[in-house]
Amino acid sequence: MTPFAQLILVRHGESRWNLEQRFTGWADIDLTAEGEQQMRAAGLALRQAGIALDQTYSSVLRRCIRSQWILLEAMECFWVPQILDWRLNERHYGALTGRDKALAEREYGPAAVLHWRRSYTAQPPAIDAAAAVFVSIDRRYAGLAAGDIPVGESLQQTVARVHDVWHESIAKSLRTGKTVAIVGHGNSLRALIKIVEGLSDAEITGVEVGNGTPLIYEFDATLQLRGKRTLTAAPNQSSEIL
Amino acid sequence: MTPFAQLILVRHGESRWNLEQRFTGWADIDLTAEGEQQMRAAGLALRQAGIALDQTYSSVLRRCIRSQWILLEAMECFWVPQILDWRLNERHYGALTGRDKALAEREYGPAAVLHWRRSYTAQPPAIDAAAAVFVSIDRRYAGLAAGDIPVGESLQQTVARVHDVWHESIAKSLRTGKTVAIVGHGNSLRALIKIVEGLSDAEITGVEVGNGTPLIYEFDATLQLRGKRTLTAAPNQSSEIL
Repeated sequence: MTPFAQLILVRHGESRWNLEQRFTGWADIDLTAEGEQQMRAAGLALRQAGIALDQTYSSVLRRCIRSQWILLEAMECFWVPQILDWRLNERHYGALTGRDKALAEREYGPAAVLHWRRSYTAQPPAIDAAAAVFVSIDRRYAGLAAGDIPVGESLQQTVARVHDVWHESIAKSLRTGKTVAIVGHGNSLRALIKIVEGLSDAEITGVEVGNGTPLIYEFDATLQLRGKRTLTAAPNQSSEIL
Repeated sequence: MTPFAQLILVRHGESRWNLEQRFTGWADIDLTAEGEQQMRAAGLALRQAGIALDQTYSSVLRRCIRSQWILLEAMECFWVPQILDWRLNERHYGALTGRDKALAEREYGPAAVLHWRRSYTAQPPAIDAAAAVFVSIDRRYAGLAAGDIPVGESLQQTVARVHDVWHESIAKSLRTGKTVAIVGHGNSLRALIKIVEGLSDAEITGVEVGNGTPLIYEFDATLQLRGKRTLTAAPNQSSEIL
């Protein structure tokens, strides 16, 4: 039976900094060739599964937007409306942005880095003021008050802003019976998984989302979750969320 | 002096049927490699001219949407919101769809073909009922009542639907001081040129729009036209609108 509404979560394809094991966050890093291929495979798998999209969402970061374009092309639905929202950006990694895991561990100690990566509430050290300037003059964030631009977020803070988009827009689309795809980041998708599945703060920190692997939720007309499945599509997965 | 608002019109890059001199209309034909290159050149020229987009519009046809994606990438602004609207589609060429000019002239006579191409009010012969079925079951046109799906349009009819988008949305964006790009088709852009420049029905039929050549209009806060210029960007132009 066709479900009333469907939500498809897809993490963007492998980025250059996924490959280099560097904390990315709000840094606007593009896909690798492998990442583009992962998204084509995801789109073809969704098309073969008979999924017909009505709406997509993504962040304002290019690795997500390019992933979404590749997905729409592979699904032969260039014309599907896209909503881009900065609140679907990756968790802001503060001073860790751009550092690789080994470097961060040398600088802050392995226990601190593990804590920032796996705790629900821990904030990384704030990005320095000079680095924050680059976001503050970026036109895509022009609608934010200066105090609202993150300088380093916990997963909890990421969940809070993703929840606003869920409440204002995504849930409304699902209630009208739409099939909605969200091309997101490791942590913005964790936020959505937590919301949709009602996971605890502890449970969500153990969830990993691979690049380009569609996760499909099915809902009834009262937005009760009725099904969940994963499409295996991409030949290679980056299993770890930095 | 920076203008209050700017409207940039860019015709999509060369499509396969532009190259083959075939009437395209609502047939969803993709770009050639040359067409992609034209759009990259257009985007680079706009970027070099210091244009910073706030909003884009295009049709629901892939040659236009792909052109828009390439333009946004070349301008380094993946994140700019895109509005897609079927009313910005190319003029529907009815029974001429898919025919090349020579074949159409053999079938209907050169005078009739010239009249359909150059008259403001002439409608081409209607597309046959079997062909119309393909549009009627296409999800991107699901919002249209069956009687509102065109089967062959005059330029005048194309202008009427483009004018609705202008009035409902584009003019409003410009009144808020935005820089807006419309990646359009030969005849949807003629419609916009007619509206913006206040051209007569006779004047507009003589206007040609080359693939990938940005036309920039500048407006003051009362939406009075204050300037017009063309950026020469693409190495090759297809000069003729079919």
